[in-house]
Amino acid sequence: MKRPIVGVVGGGQLARMMIPAAVTLGIELRVLAETRQAPAELAVTQIGNVNDIVELRSFVKGLDVLTFEHEHVPQPVLGELLQEGCNIQPPPMALRAAQNKWHMRQRMSELNLPNPVWTAAKNATEVDDFVRSQGGVAIAKTPIGGYDGRGVRVISSPADVADWLARIDELGGQLLLEERISFRRELAALLARSPSGEISHWPLIETRQANGVCNVAIAPAPQPAPSAQAKDIAERVAQGLGVTGVLAVEMFEDHSGRLYINELAMRPHNSGHFSIEASETSQFEQHLRAVLDLPLGSTELKSEHAVMQNLLGASEATDLQGRAAQALDLFPAIKFHDYCKPPRSGRKLGHLTRSGDNLDLILSELEQARAIFID
Amino acid sequence: MKRPIVGVVGGGQLARMMIPAAVTLGIELRVLAETRQAPAELAVTQIGNVNDIVELRSFVKGLDVLTFEHEHVPQPVLGELLQEGCNIQPPPMALRAAQNKWHMRQRMSELNLPNPVWTAAKNATEVDDFVRSQGGVAIAKTPIGGYDGRGVRVISSPADVADWLARIDELGGQLLLEERISFRRELAALLARSPSGEISHWPLIETRQANGVCNVAIAPAPQPAPSAQAKDIAERVAQGLGVTGVLAVEMFEDHSGRLYINELAMRPHNSGHFSIEASETSQFEQHLRAVLDLPLGSTELKSEHAVMQNLLGASEATDLQGRAAQALDLFPAIKFHDYCKPPRSGRKLGHLTRSGDNLDLILSELEQARAIFID
Repeated sequence: MKRPIVGVVGGGQLARMMIPAAVTLGIELRVLAETRQAPAELAVTQIGNVNDIVELRSFVKGLDVLTFEHEHVPQPVLGELLQEGCNIQPPPMALRAAQNKWHMRQRMSELNLPNPVWTAAKNATEVDDFVRSQGGVAIAKTPIGGYDGRGVRVISSPADVADWLARIDELGGQLLLEERISFRRELAALLARSPSGEISHWPLIETRQANGVCNVAIAPAPQPAPSAQAKDIAERVAQGLGVTGVLAVEMFEDHSGRLYINELAMRPHNSGHFSIEASETSQFEQHLRAVLDLPLGSTELKSEHAVMQNLLGASEATDLQGRAAQALDLFPAIKFHDYCKPPRSGRKLGHLTRSGDNLDLILSELEQARAIFID
Repeated sequence: MKRPIVGVVGGGQLARMMIPAAVTLGIELRVLAETRQAPAELAVTQIGNVNDIVELRSFVKGLDVLTFEHEHVPQPVLGELLQEGCNIQPPPMALRAAQNKWHMRQRMSELNLPNPVWTAAKNATEVDDFVRSQGGVAIAKTPIGGYDGRGVRVISSPADVADWLARIDELGGQLLLEERISFRRELAALLARSPSGEISHWPLIETRQANGVCNVAIAPAPQPAPSAQAKDIAERVAQGLGVTGVLAVEMFEDHSGRLYINELAMRPHNSGHFSIEASETSQFEQHLRAVLDLPLGSTELKSEHAVMQNLLGASEATDLQGRAAQALDLFPAIKFHDYCKPPRSGRKLGHLTRSGDNLDLILSELEQARAIFID
């Protein structure tokens, strides 16, 4: 069997974190990035626009499989590559539900999976109707282009989305409107699925956000947790859509323990970074194995608990390396990840992971460590 | 604090396994290799002869620290670099004891550390005298150039080393002769030490050889084990010689539990590969942190037991990737490492690691997995 070659579209931290797994497994990783100075620079083999079929056509030559660290390659480009015989995992048909939130809601409804109440709206009247039906408050989302809280608003009238309505064509032709779930917490169900149908789950994860961005992820989600139910939902999403590679299903758990699907990602996900140190097989290794249709690895946790703490830039002067040296001196069991991104306020620059059998101690150490990174 | 830059002499699997740690920590790794097609290819920035001062002088430009994955850079070259202000870790003075086995024995004796009975011999008469003093059998070693059992022989007369004596000048001017220890098992004490003196130990390791090459490494060494004594010896070696980075002290344990130093390595070592998955901080991460004088990480084991199984080539046709796919399908908790070396009989091509709380199960799985790799 020859050494497998995996091409990844996108040169950000998710592609960067695939490098250690690829080096370990002897997989050749090739990254198509928009700029040379990308976090995944070491594995970048081509610089180009990921919307451009000519660029992609050249990139996929010689690959065993094409995969992604983001959802931005347009469907027409993926469709052409597919027609030309390229092995694309996850398949473009599945990826649609991660590219367009309106499409996702529709597919989840068809699969009878738990959505909040939702609708699509093209104009102020339709927005107004839905907001009223929801008692005066709703969630509005742009179907495409949002991430880390961008493209999501709590609204109480059409005026709150007047700007979006004014450029509705750029945003996918309609807005997605959803019931506002009064939730107890946010959870993420993470699995990997291979083209031949093998599925492997990580434990259910609780994520805690700050300003719409994931702050910490706790694995397993503290008890009591609807683990079996979440696992079942994620598996039905994976099989229903034909997802391959890593799938993250972000969910809300309401106060009665009911789950609602919030978002989907078909690639390694921020909520799964704990798996690098804390799981027998990390989400990055498993993604590579899954898209290559290799046997999947054990996802057993190596400790009772593992928590990931994101590190966001405080300013353009954030000295991540210097702060890390201080934090690691105080907390030798904390693991540090630097994405090698130019610092900027609010930008994800790296993360910390701490594993062990005492969740309170883990959370306390991470909180103290995080404080060291704040200017 | 700017992003640290570490230069590594040597492009083999040990340099390769530093790549994941460097990527994670945001350290820039630059490798000087003898050929482009090296296991550490991804991080190779220069191809050249590691004996050549001009080559080295060019390589060390801009580095924060120069370190090694082997002991082959000659002392005169290191001396010049040192004079020119290069930060070399481990310091050349310390490295001498890993480069020349005769020098090592002498330094261990000076430090009052446990050697077998030993002497140096330049001719057949001196060899004969020592063999007789040892009851007719002894170990002969070439002071330089040996590894994985090469350069080591059990001898019963000068005739057994006639070829070595004929070219004694190439081999360091003398042979090292040692008492043959009747040992119960082989152990390795592994630690890291930083220039500012911080020391961190991994648990004591038992290594089991086959044909003079490490076959499996078991951490921690099964009880009863002279852990405290081994730790003390390794620490005295590190401090006595001024070692920085990872130090492996290979030892014999005789039937009464007494320890004898066998060999030293001042770099990540085959006996410590288990630490990649099984320790909070791997020997590769710790080596980088230590030579940069960054705080050291926790070396706690994440499981009760961890075992590493070397994978040696059976022939030039060994299909490591294909066999790995079979092995991982049967044993999803086993981790696979491919060094991406051209296969050859007896060559270390990769390794497997299995962690858990049942040592018998671990050893049995690894033995079954290893059988899959044998043609």
